[in-house]
Amino acid sequence: MKLSQIAQSLNGEMRGNDIEISGVSNLDVQSEGTIGYAENKNTLTVMSRSPVSALILPTTIEYDGKPVISVDNPKLAFSRVLEMFSPYEPYEAKTYPNTYIATTAKLGKNVTVMPFACIMDGAVIGDDTLIYPHVFIGKNVKIGKKCVLKSGVKIDDLTEVGNNVIIHHNTVLGGDGFGYVQEGGRNLKVTQIGTISIGDHVEIGACVAIDRATVGKTEIGCGVKIDNLVQIGHNCKIGDNSILVSQVGIAGSSVLGKNCILAGQVGVADHVVMGDNVVILAQAGVEKRKIDSNSVLLGTPARDAILTRRIFSAEEKLPEIIKTLREIKEKNGNAEKK
Amino acid sequence: MKLSQIAQSLNGEMRGNDIEISGVSNLDVQSEGTIGYAENKNTLTVMSRSPVSALILPTTIEYDGKPVISVDNPKLAFSRVLEMFSPYEPYEAKTYPNTYIATTAKLGKNVTVMPFACIMDGAVIGDDTLIYPHVFIGKNVKIGKKCVLKSGVKIDDLTEVGNNVIIHHNTVLGGDGFGYVQEGGRNLKVTQIGTISIGDHVEIGACVAIDRATVGKTEIGCGVKIDNLVQIGHNCKIGDNSILVSQVGIAGSSVLGKNCILAGQVGVADHVVMGDNVVILAQAGVEKRKIDSNSVLLGTPARDAILTRRIFSAEEKLPEIIKTLREIKEKNGNAEKK
Amino acid sequence: MKLSQIAQSLNGEMRGNDIEISGVSNLDVQSEGTIGYAENKNTLTVMSRSPVSALILPTTIEYDGKPVISVDNPKLAFSRVLEMFSPYEPYEAKTYPNTYIATTAKLGKNVTVMPFACIMDGAVIGDDTLIYPHVFIGKNVKIGKKCVLKSGVKIDDLTEVGNNVIIHHNTVLGGDGFGYVQEGGRNLKVTQIGTISIGDHVEIGACVAIDRATVGKTEIGCGVKIDNLVQIGHNCKIGDNSILVSQVGIAGSSVLGKNCILAGQVGVADHVVMGDNVVILAQAGVEKRKIDSNSVLLGTPARDAILTRRIFSAEEKLPEIIKTLREIKEKNGNAEKK
Repeated sequence: MKLSQIAQSLNGEMRGNDIEISGVSNLDVQSEGTIGYAENKNTLTVMSRSPVSALILPTTIEYDGKPVISVDNPKLAFSRVLEMFSPYEPYEAKTYPNTYIATTAKLGKNVTVMPFACIMDGAVIGDDTLIYPHVFIGKNVKIGKKCVLKSGVKIDDLTEVGNNVIIHHNTVLGGDGFGYVQEGGRNLKVTQIGTISIGDHVEIGACVAIDRATVGKTEIGCGVKIDNLVQIGHNCKIGDNSILVSQVGIAGSSVLGKNCILAGQVGVADHVVMGDNVVILAQAGVEKRKIDSNSVLLGTPARDAILTRRIFSAEEKLPEIIKTLREIKEKNGNAEKK
Repeated sequence: MKLSQIAQSLNGEMRGNDIEISGVSNLDVQSEGTIGYAENKNTLTVMSRSPVSALILPTTIEYDGKPVISVDNPKLAFSRVLEMFSPYEPYEAKTYPNTYIATTAKLGKNVTVMPFACIMDGAVIGDDTLIYPHVFIGKNVKIGKKCVLKSGVKIDDLTEVGNNVIIHHNTVLGGDGFGYVQEGGRNLKVTQIGTISIGDHVEIGACVAIDRATVGKTEIGCGVKIDNLVQIGHNCKIGDNSILVSQVGIAGSSVLGKNCILAGQVGVADHVVMGDNVVILAQAGVEKRKIDSNSVLLGTPARDAILTRRIFSAEEKLPEIIKTLREIKEKNGNAEKK
Repeated sequence: MKLSQIAQSLNGEMRGNDIEISGVSNLDVQSEGTIGYAENKNTLTVMSRSPVSALILPTTIEYDGKPVISVDNPKLAFSRVLEMFSPYEPYEAKTYPNTYIATTAKLGKNVTVMPFACIMDGAVIGDDTLIYPHVFIGKNVKIGKKCVLKSGVKIDDLTEVGNNVIIHHNTVLGGDGFGYVQEGGRNLKVTQIGTISIGDHVEIGACVAIDRATVGKTEIGCGVKIDNLVQIGHNCKIGDNSILVSQVGIAGSSVLGKNCILAGQVGVADHVVMGDNVVILAQAGVEKRKIDSNSVLLGTPARDAILTRRIFSAEEKLPEIIKTLREIKEKNGNAEKK
């Protein structure tokens, strides 16, 4: 593919020689003949010294070296270039043999159902949705249009999934909420009669578990992105465009605002209410019931990240502090004796 | 449904108007025409101010407002009311097409096997058990009566599951224990020939992994409740009625007593032995080999919760402590110079 | 089985009576008539007092009690004895009914495909590989020889798996890397066109998620052993013979050297580069970008384990430190007043 062709499809401005581009490079993998991108001067320094043959750069950066395509959002443009060079071929849209589709299930136009998928009574599947092998869609589930459910996804009864949702392999929507009541030393199950609602443009990773509500709905807002192995308890509400990184766990009834980011392995206690744009850094444990909008938290227990960084730094001096204190006490003791 | 009907089926005493009840409410979701519950004065204050039209209360609380049903255990009674209003319809008990059942497998009366479930040689399934699609039941597995195995549950050979057990989607029983031996710089697998035994009335969440023992059995006691994404290593023993919250990980050969509670994301090292009624609070890391009964632990490393709370609180003063110490040293230095 | 027979097949030297051995024992489970092993004097003390009837010991230990088999590596020898007494019977090597195998897929000799497994176009499966029920093998996937893919394993398109690889139930290889770009307040997906490569002699536990690379490959080296519920992000490289214990999470583009050990629930940030033989202790959180070979780290943030142990120990004195400081300040204040 010619660089000029790529520039054209990105609506970008090309500078330099119109070379042939045979693939892509990024900060992880670089090779000659490929195109990469940089968002700022630091990554530009790395990429300009690499064997990469052309670069996508923001219009705001001046650069005089390899051939360049200037665009407003280089990462977004690069994602489009990735699509151009993708070796993945789409699955043929057809109904495969060996499926189980209940007679009362309603499939939209152009729905693909791959082998051993199982769609139960009353389920409704929107147009152009692709259902991989071994997917289970329970009774009266509603799936929107243009969704992709990868192999082994399990969606229990009455769950509602929006449009343009991608769910990766072996993820589970609709396990029972985890609720028990003590009676005579035994844990008796509290019946869970609520459901789950997933907004549009949501992506959910592999091996994720989202529980149905006790009463009402567990709600995942539009544009939410969830990484692998995440746990979301019953009656949680995740605000639009929030990001939950891998192995995050959120206990029951907690509410996140919009555009929140929970980094890897973060834990959130039950009944926590967060505002918008909250950032919780990796491995933090949130137990405070109310988190203000725009907070940045770190540590267990999760505290203001700047304070926690100070504590982390001070901790290293703890053994020394104890030694100093002992010396002062001894000196004072000696002084008193005098 | 009339409030009096509900009171009757709960064996509770009704006070106030015999109103029509159309649904349920709890602390998460409240609406008019519904019935809720409160266990103590705090939740009663919230619920009495809510639009909820009737309340289930303990006989010990006096309350004069909305219509009331008095019972001994309101949460338990509420769970029964949830059942009455459940929108979930049971799956039809029948043998579906497209199953694989080995000829030497023995199914009890009234067993339901849904499409694409797979039951191998010598497996025994008790009466009234419900097996969802894509379940795998290995050779010589024994499943008790009235169990529910949700879609994608995988039970490897020789595992024994008791009666009235619920296992949620995509959970795995019987992966090999994680054991290797070093030889010439390589990790060679230690053969794992033990099995797993699951007691009666156990509930296991989605995407849980319980490993088979190296020798003997990994044992999950009766009434144990396990949340999503929990890891239980080979040869662990979990005492009756213990509760393991989501993302808990227990390394090999650890033993929990009865009625223990491990909160979310707790980690337990290998060969730990806990007494009964131990509570480990969220994200704690237990490495001490012996934990006394009735301990309440918090933090990494897990220590007495009261001590850990004191440490958490003192930590925040660390930067200030360092400053104070510096001042004292300077002052002492000046004093000495004088 | 006679003890002498066992000694012979282990190439070990027998001492004492040639008794009949009916099973195996280890530190978890001990009974009469069985054979156990000890690697050092501590475990020998335990095992010699147990009802176990014979012991496998290293040639370096002198012991005069129960009958003994002397070998170079007792744990390795014991693993072979475990095989001898295994109650597990292999699955019959044949092609079962109810499978989906695309006509362009190429299966080697003696490949077993169990019911409801699904092999898509262009996939290549090596000789003697065993594919359990509900496995999904995507387009153009390559699986080596003598592999075992347990039930529910999902391998997305273009993934390459070496020889002698074992993958436990419900593990996912090839979910999309977790990458988004902000545009107008929304998170847009960055297309992930890379793949995954798994070396020879790798074992992967249950419910593990390994993501495909954005560009290039996510690489798991030869001899790597991965426990249950582990997360490995896009473009990670795990060096040969490294061990990842349960619930470890490694963010995108991080690189581990050879023979690293990450204990349970460890988290590693993105773009971390570790040398060889690094040990990260349980629950630690690694955020430093460069970790030297042979480091042993503990804590969040992960620091040298000896330093962290000192901090853990000093932490307990924090409340006391604050008290002492207050006393000193008061005394100094009083002294000044004088």
